[in-house]
Amino acid sequence: MSTTVIILAAGKGTRMRSSLPKVLQPLAGQPLLGHVVQTAKALQAHQIITIYGHEGQRVKDAFQQEDIQWVEQKEQLGTGHAVQMVLPVLPQDGYSLILYGDVPLVSKKTLDQLVRATATSGIGMITLNVADPTGYGRIVRKNGAIQAIVEHKDASDEERQIQEINTGIYCVSNAKLHEWLPKLSNHNVQGEYYLTDIVAMAVQDGLSTASIQPEQAFEVEGVNDRIQLAALEREYQRQQAKQLMQQGVAFADPERFDLRGSLKVGQDVFIDINVIIEGECEIGDHVVIGAGSILKNTCIAAHTQVQPYSVFDHAQVGKNNRIGPFARLRPGSVLAADVHIGNFVEVKNTQIGEASKANHFTYLGDADIGKGCNIGAGTITCNYDGVNKHKTTIEHYAFIGSNSSLVAPVHIGTYATIGAGSVITRDVKAHTLAFERSQQTEKTNYQRPQKTQ
Amino acid sequence: MSTTVIILAAGKGTRMRSSLPKVLQPLAGQPLLGHVVQTAKALQAHQIITIYGHEGQRVKDAFQQEDIQWVEQKEQLGTGHAVQMVLPVLPQDGYSLILYGDVPLVSKKTLDQLVRATATSGIGMITLNVADPTGYGRIVRKNGAIQAIVEHKDASDEERQIQEINTGIYCVSNAKLHEWLPKLSNHNVQGEYYLTDIVAMAVQDGLSTASIQPEQAFEVEGVNDRIQLAALEREYQRQQAKQLMQQGVAFADPERFDLRGSLKVGQDVFIDINVIIEGECEIGDHVVIGAGSILKNTCIAAHTQVQPYSVFDHAQVGKNNRIGPFARLRPGSVLAADVHIGNFVEVKNTQIGEASKANHFTYLGDADIGKGCNIGAGTITCNYDGVNKHKTTIEHYAFIGSNSSLVAPVHIGTYATIGAGSVITRDVKAHTLAFERSQQTEKTNYQRPQKTQ
Amino acid sequence: MSTTVIILAAGKGTRMRSSLPKVLQPLAGQPLLGHVVQTAKALQAHQIITIYGHEGQRVKDAFQQEDIQWVEQKEQLGTGHAVQMVLPVLPQDGYSLILYGDVPLVSKKTLDQLVRATATSGIGMITLNVADPTGYGRIVRKNGAIQAIVEHKDASDEERQIQEINTGIYCVSNAKLHEWLPKLSNHNVQGEYYLTDIVAMAVQDGLSTASIQPEQAFEVEGVNDRIQLAALEREYQRQQAKQLMQQGVAFADPERFDLRGSLKVGQDVFIDINVIIEGECEIGDHVVIGAGSILKNTCIAAHTQVQPYSVFDHAQVGKNNRIGPFARLRPGSVLAADVHIGNFVEVKNTQIGEASKANHFTYLGDADIGKGCNIGAGTITCNYDGVNKHKTTIEHYAFIGSNSSLVAPVHIGTYATIGAGSVITRDVKAHTLAFERSQQTEKTNYQRPQKTQ
Repeated sequence: MSTTVIILAAGKGTRMRSSLPKVLQPLAGQPLLGHVVQTAKALQAHQIITIYGHEGQRVKDAFQQEDIQWVEQKEQLGTGHAVQMVLPVLPQDGYSLILYGDVPLVSKKTLDQLVRATATSGIGMITLNVADPTGYGRIVRKNGAIQAIVEHKDASDEERQIQEINTGIYCVSNAKLHEWLPKLSNHNVQGEYYLTDIVAMAVQDGLSTASIQPEQAFEVEGVNDRIQLAALEREYQRQQAKQLMQQGVAFADPERFDLRGSLKVGQDVFIDINVIIEGECEIGDHVVIGAGSILKNTCIAAHTQVQPYSVFDHAQVGKNNRIGPFARLRPGSVLAADVHIGNFVEVKNTQIGEASKANHFTYLGDADIGKGCNIGAGTITCNYDGVNKHKTTIEHYAFIGSNSSLVAPVHIGTYATIGAGSVITRDVKAHTLAFERSQQTEKTNYQRPQKTQ
Repeated sequence: MSTTVIILAAGKGTRMRSSLPKVLQPLAGQPLLGHVVQTAKALQAHQIITIYGHEGQRVKDAFQQEDIQWVEQKEQLGTGHAVQMVLPVLPQDGYSLILYGDVPLVSKKTLDQLVRATATSGIGMITLNVADPTGYGRIVRKNGAIQAIVEHKDASDEERQIQEINTGIYCVSNAKLHEWLPKLSNHNVQGEYYLTDIVAMAVQDGLSTASIQPEQAFEVEGVNDRIQLAALEREYQRQQAKQLMQQGVAFADPERFDLRGSLKVGQDVFIDINVIIEGECEIGDHVVIGAGSILKNTCIAAHTQVQPYSVFDHAQVGKNNRIGPFARLRPGSVLAADVHIGNFVEVKNTQIGEASKANHFTYLGDADIGKGCNIGAGTITCNYDGVNKHKTTIEHYAFIGSNSSLVAPVHIGTYATIGAGSVITRDVKAHTLAFERSQQTEKTNYQRPQKTQ
Repeated sequence: MSTTVIILAAGKGTRMRSSLPKVLQPLAGQPLLGHVVQTAKALQAHQIITIYGHEGQRVKDAFQQEDIQWVEQKEQLGTGHAVQMVLPVLPQDGYSLILYGDVPLVSKKTLDQLVRATATSGIGMITLNVADPTGYGRIVRKNGAIQAIVEHKDASDEERQIQEINTGIYCVSNAKLHEWLPKLSNHNVQGEYYLTDIVAMAVQDGLSTASIQPEQAFEVEGVNDRIQLAALEREYQRQQAKQLMQQGVAFADPERFDLRGSLKVGQDVFIDINVIIEGECEIGDHVVIGAGSILKNTCIAAHTQVQPYSVFDHAQVGKNNRIGPFARLRPGSVLAADVHIGNFVEVKNTQIGEASKANHFTYLGDADIGKGCNIGAGTITCNYDGVNKHKTTIEHYAFIGSNSSLVAPVHIGTYATIGAGSVITRDVKAHTLAFERSQQTEKTNYQRPQKTQ
């Protein structure tokens, strides 16, 4: 059965108090609408139709990489009206899932179930049982069969006792949508076209409306303000941490973990408190990620120890490294095995060979460093002349003395040694000691400056 | 109606296990008593009378800026006795709100309600319905009217079922306080004068005691030990985060946010996990505050990105800056627009002009830096000679090579260039290259030191 | 009464998805089994017998310091079978407590109660009343006396209503264990020998089984997967924070605190958010630990302020110090009183005398620093020549200019002064100014490099 996914994404989201359209607000680093689009793709939807309205161009721009058919809803006259806009491009056969750009976390599993449940009846919906249904549309059943959806304000006292509510998510045969939607009316208090009216039409047609409930309530929670968005972010993070724990990750505190993207993990990974993972990351067996570390688009091989407060961005870290605390790997950092990067060290666009060390206060930018090198504390690759960036090459087993400045472009040979505090402006050959230094001079009985005030 | 606020603040707070008087214990960076005083001021109280006892001088010293009338309670003989101390200075007319230095979060809104409710009856109180009233004084009503307050230990089994409890917060006409308080007796098990007895006196006088309930239970929660203090701190932080979200702030996790002071925000501010805001701060539109950053008395203009683990104190940050991670702005840091401050950079008492950059390992202290400057990695303003601090001036578009030491007082002219690794002790003119460097010297076939052990 | 503690620790823990045996998984920095062993020792158990199986050698190795008698269970044929393995080494008299290597947090207090309760009857157990007993063995009682333990799958509908469950923790007279265990049978669905069958044997023998309940439910919670382990970690951390608050510690947020070891505290200690304490630490009166700081095996004297993001390991910090933010004290850091260590400073194997300061970007390794010294920004002790570590000595009141490199071994005399940017390779006498510097050279009308691309 071919499935179309229709996503309602035209709302303004005034209560967010934002200049950004609501469906572009990020949850776990991805726009709300993006979560729904990802789920639609995971369902292998035949077609994804998104109804846009408020700041539509901005919404479309954000998803230009995606194969989405965009349909405009110029006036916002209700959910039924929104789906009516889709009819001109909606296939005659197959089924449609009707989803919402601000209900981001409905799962593939739940939707698969809904599609299956709908197959025999032509219309199905997701309902939810809640402790306090105040404000929601109630599901009125007779002998178990759904009869109607009654909005809270229209509900009788008896109906208000009903705890099963409408989530707004439907699966409907396209043939029926073509039949029913043109018949919606706006003869109601709000003067809007309600999608929910199709349930009554199904009853009139003698169709039974299938229904399923989601595994977790947050799947059908919508976002209307920052408080709801923050709450849903936490639900999602909790779920992600849970899935990682099921894969064997050890968390010091799963409530203090943020994954804003995807994470592949090996065995026996330990993640300490307050770690943030962004983009696409991969962490090998027995890796330890220290407290407060932030990894973005980074790959870390097995047995590496990342000490606290290390910040990596687009880095590749080899196995058995020891990095941090307070280390920063910027884009283009590529570290081989057994590398040590210590505190207050910044690496950018630099390759570092096996077993090399830069343990303190060092800036390595645009450099190519061999294996077995020792980069002394305070070493700086002077890669920038104010307009151009230049490269520093350090061959295997070089020893760079502390507080050295390597003025790029410069080449340091194998087994070369640089004396502490040197400014190196010319290439240094292999097995050579280079230094730049004056005589140490002394004045005895030196009078220090006096306090002037 | 003129209102007096009476605050009971004489308790020792033994269970805090602290050398600090209980009412001086901080909640969200402010003493408990300070919260009550702020609320009293927000109510535009005619007069604030605070009853002190334990370590009174220390309490008075902490509030010497405030217009408070202090009344001593030398012996602690009960809440009624405490308020008796106030009578000599209490006006004959108007009303008094009776509050507690260790019940810090009662809101202006609730107290306004209480005052209004009391206006017709002469006495009113805040009560609270709780699931488990064990230990609290119960509100005994007859036909809805308050008859008495019965302490838990004196309550009958039936009375113990009552879930409405006494919070201790009253609003009473001063005339009645003058009439009732002298009649209190200490003929009870504790040998104390109970303020609660005035409710029975009101009944005897044929007055009905008005009552209201607070919007949130934590408003009437008192602090007796560290556990209660920490719990109340969290309630308060949760409430503050909620208010900011209602103003449109996006939090990665509102449970991991601490505001210890006040924060003004623009539109579309994003605050990542574990940010702490202290003192008075202001954050402009579209500002991003990275994880773990700490801002104190700092103002940040629109579109600035603060990367993780940046620590600011008394700083002014211009618009569209990019700062951090691991940046520290100390008092007197004033940054213009488009400034970049990178990792492991410390700025103190320094102005930085538009579009200037200091991207790595730099200490800028007591400096005045023009626009378009590039401050190389490892640059240090040597501002301290051991006794005096001196100023460094860097004019527009200067380029300071890496690892330079600028020995203040020193002046670097417009478009001047400093060679890497130089110690600059004399002024450098505009458009001039200055450097301090020896020849690079080399020894071929250098034998490195041998292992001595 | 002499008590034997029998610990079942043979399980593989497949659901942990780990290469580490389950009982070695850490909780608060200590293996699960370690918690049970500590409790056994606190009970002054006459003998600790641990039953091992899966990866037994690794388990034994981890506890080789402990006085444990190890008994192997080669095949895992049930809890009864496990305890049968112990019989050859079990004394004939006294009592045994039967505990589990994956139920780490049962308290001494609860076990003491259990032992006392058992004294008169010969067999006692810990039970727990839970809201949802699904899956657990139910305690069937008649007139209050325990009759049997019925596994969930064997329970009648009526028995499934029972909310009192079996925790598996028993205290039994050794005589009875010798009598009962050989009689266990594996004639059941699982084909296993169940320890629980001894309860029925007690009933047959006319003995009443004593029972007690733990003060807190988490005491009897077992660990089978990462989710349960993380949940128990939080329970434990919450309890530890609570105990510290009862001792008077002020936490900004007790939910964001991790203690993985032991902590002794003075009065009025304040611990900000996200602090981690590891190993054995001690913190004096009025010490403030800033947000995100990590202390391991560290001792901090009174009135010291540790600013945010400071990382200490095996350090001794004197009184009234001011340290951080972003300071790192590595093993062997010993700081006297009134020392100031500022941002981005690393100290290792170094003593620092009273009132000395190193406020910015400094690496002090293998040094001995006197009192009243000022170590300028960017100072580096060049302690490593590639193979050997050497010592730097700085006598009282020395002033080290910024960006200096002190090439060890080197000795800087009392009141000596080092000029900024110097590389010091020879000893400097007292009251002497030493510097290593060239002339400052200038080229006017300097043409800067041009953009090459």
